[in-house]
Amino acid sequence: MISKKMRATLAGSSVIRQMFEEGNRLAKIHGAENVFDFSIGNPNVKPPEKVKTVIKEILDNEDPNYIHGYMSNSGYEDVREGIAQDLNKKHGLNLTYKNVAMTVGAGGGLSIVFKTILDPDDEVITFAPYFGPYGNYIDDCQGKLVVVPSKMGTFEPDTKALEAAITPKTKAVIINSPNNPTGVVYKEAVIKELADLLTKKSAEMNNTIYIVSDDPYREIVYDGIDVPYMLNYYKNTFGVYSYSKSLSLPGERIGYVAFSPEMDEAEEVEICLSNATRNIGYTNAPSLFQRVILECLDETVEVDVYKRNRDLLYNHLLDLGFECAKPEGAFYLFAKTLVPDDKAFVQAAKKYNLLAVPGSAFGCPGYMRMSYCISYDKIERSLNAWTQLANEFKK
Amino acid sequence: MISKKMRATLAGSSVIRQMFEEGNRLAKIHGAENVFDFSIGNPNVKPPEKVKTVIKEILDNEDPNYIHGYMSNSGYEDVREGIAQDLNKKHGLNLTYKNVAMTVGAGGGLSIVFKTILDPDDEVITFAPYFGPYGNYIDDCQGKLVVVPSKMGTFEPDTKALEAAITPKTKAVIINSPNNPTGVVYKEAVIKELADLLTKKSAEMNNTIYIVSDDPYREIVYDGIDVPYMLNYYKNTFGVYSYSKSLSLPGERIGYVAFSPEMDEAEEVEICLSNATRNIGYTNAPSLFQRVILECLDETVEVDVYKRNRDLLYNHLLDLGFECAKPEGAFYLFAKTLVPDDKAFVQAAKKYNLLAVPGSAFGCPGYMRMSYCISYDKIERSLNAWTQLANEFKK
Repeated sequence: MISKKMRATLAGSSVIRQMFEEGNRLAKIHGAENVFDFSIGNPNVKPPEKVKTVIKEILDNEDPNYIHGYMSNSGYEDVREGIAQDLNKKHGLNLTYKNVAMTVGAGGGLSIVFKTILDPDDEVITFAPYFGPYGNYIDDCQGKLVVVPSKMGTFEPDTKALEAAITPKTKAVIINSPNNPTGVVYKEAVIKELADLLTKKSAEMNNTIYIVSDDPYREIVYDGIDVPYMLNYYKNTFGVYSYSKSLSLPGERIGYVAFSPEMDEAEEVEICLSNATRNIGYTNAPSLFQRVILECLDETVEVDVYKRNRDLLYNHLLDLGFECAKPEGAFYLFAKTLVPDDKAFVQAAKKYNLLAVPGSAFGCPGYMRMSYCISYDKIERSLNAWTQLANEFKK
Repeated sequence: MISKKMRATLAGSSVIRQMFEEGNRLAKIHGAENVFDFSIGNPNVKPPEKVKTVIKEILDNEDPNYIHGYMSNSGYEDVREGIAQDLNKKHGLNLTYKNVAMTVGAGGGLSIVFKTILDPDDEVITFAPYFGPYGNYIDDCQGKLVVVPSKMGTFEPDTKALEAAITPKTKAVIINSPNNPTGVVYKEAVIKELADLLTKKSAEMNNTIYIVSDDPYREIVYDGIDVPYMLNYYKNTFGVYSYSKSLSLPGERIGYVAFSPEMDEAEEVEICLSNATRNIGYTNAPSLFQRVILECLDETVEVDVYKRNRDLLYNHLLDLGFECAKPEGAFYLFAKTLVPDDKAFVQAAKKYNLLAVPGSAFGCPGYMRMSYCISYDKIERSLNAWTQLANEFKK
């Protein structure tokens, strides 16, 4: 007999994943080219060519037992040091390898951060709309996710709502900028507000309230917009990163957690992140891709491809009368559905082979998310389907 | 402030990992060639050449967004089907891809199995000596590890002790053959005994008691000995496998969980394994190595290299008066220490740059584990150090 806890998950599998599976199902019926699958953040821009050449060089020149072997649970020391130096260069920090733990993607990173800081019934606050799996990671630590709204319109954190939600049990606040699902980038003003508020509240509660900054989209930004790096504003920040988007390697599960040497109990945190990696069975981030990352620190995918996609889809949706914040980063559009029932709207979209994710999957009903990390050509061919969908609801 | 639960782990980091780090420290002082590190199961036999050629072929011929991209949480369907067919061919089973979930190594596999079946306070039984992280994975589900002794001498499961330990809270029994740390292979007679006992007890308790068969060493066996496959004997078996040892890829974190279509609630189990993979942040097993495995199902490392190592070390230790079961598989020797205090003995060994792991790390004080997956040359050069150590304790 399976566990009661897991039995409860049978009904509520991830809506995003359900859509992804639905897309695969429809593709088998109608042909992949005829299904307009905007459901999942699976990058379509090619990884930099250097990823491939570096893999081959490593295979040809290094000892296979080293590159495929065990290392310390937190990763190869030289890889961790390389990332620390890269962050120092980019953000003016003073990290060493001790402040970087290699992880099984950002999901794995979030998971070990919560293992490190949460006791049962501890609370973690985030802003709706938010990435659904946060709730799973926190629940797996018997913690509780507390959701407060973003400022509607700008979708930036509502610090007033945050302040009202903080209790003595609050252990962390999750932020995500560039944001999934809205594409919004948090400006420096709100980042400073967050830092000031949490510094004040930590003192008031006599408790460290961490910021967990989920940063996988940091490199995917448009129009030269600046993304403030949270470690520069608040010492008790975990910067959780993944190369899933910046190098188009989501399946390889390679990322890291970075934290400041000034973090409270920094030495203990280093050990706990390592122990947590072992305790949940990851053991370590995949070894070959750790070594690949070390050689690809200056690489990113062609962000302009996503920008073209954004412009095409955003402008068309606006023409059709959709309301939508213009994404400044990531590769998602978060638009108001034309009827309040977002699930019904997304269901109706399937008739036109359009797959999107209802906003309620992100704690924000009345909206839908479209991932535009698919080919420009396919977005172009989908425009008519979006028009048909809009017309159906205008009648 | 870090969590209370993790704070408690600060003192008791894995003994195996501590030794591994100690080995790295000593290597910096004395030179790696002068440190005889028998502490960790990090294979030294090269991966098959085909692993390298297959990686290059995949990189050259397949769409990078496919081979590095997201797929279903349980893995690529064709990889899962390939493994199912391979198991069917080798063991006369009738699995399909639905019965195989790709995992982040065996550790990741054990973790999602326990997430699937354990509620808080559920009990899982294993036999000492046992692989320490089992306790961590179970604790992470708020379950309880119950340890019963093996039969001393043969180190096979003591089914009488097992029967006495089963309660209404017993959810699973972990077996591990070829065994870490003893190298013992369980014979068919005891496998049948286990199956009969758990069939009887499951009925008596009106509860499914699973067998979790931790099988990463299945291919590492000597002298043509047969390793019975547990799925053939007990329908409620999870077969947890990793390519860490059979292909010398421990750092790549690639393995799977297989289960019989006749398992109780097989369909629900399939979904729960997938959900668990997402809930703890793995998301999926590394994508490129999933595709590599599909092309390397018939490959294994040169097991004879380990056999030569076993013979060299085993014969020398026997000559020195150590008591030790002759390993039939895996690459570990588990010998009685020359004084009852195994930690003191292992500490003394460090003087001679010999690193081993005390048996108490495996729930079996008075012994030590030596991993002989290091070079033959180094084992040869270590023999004098073992002699000096033995002489010290004979004085």
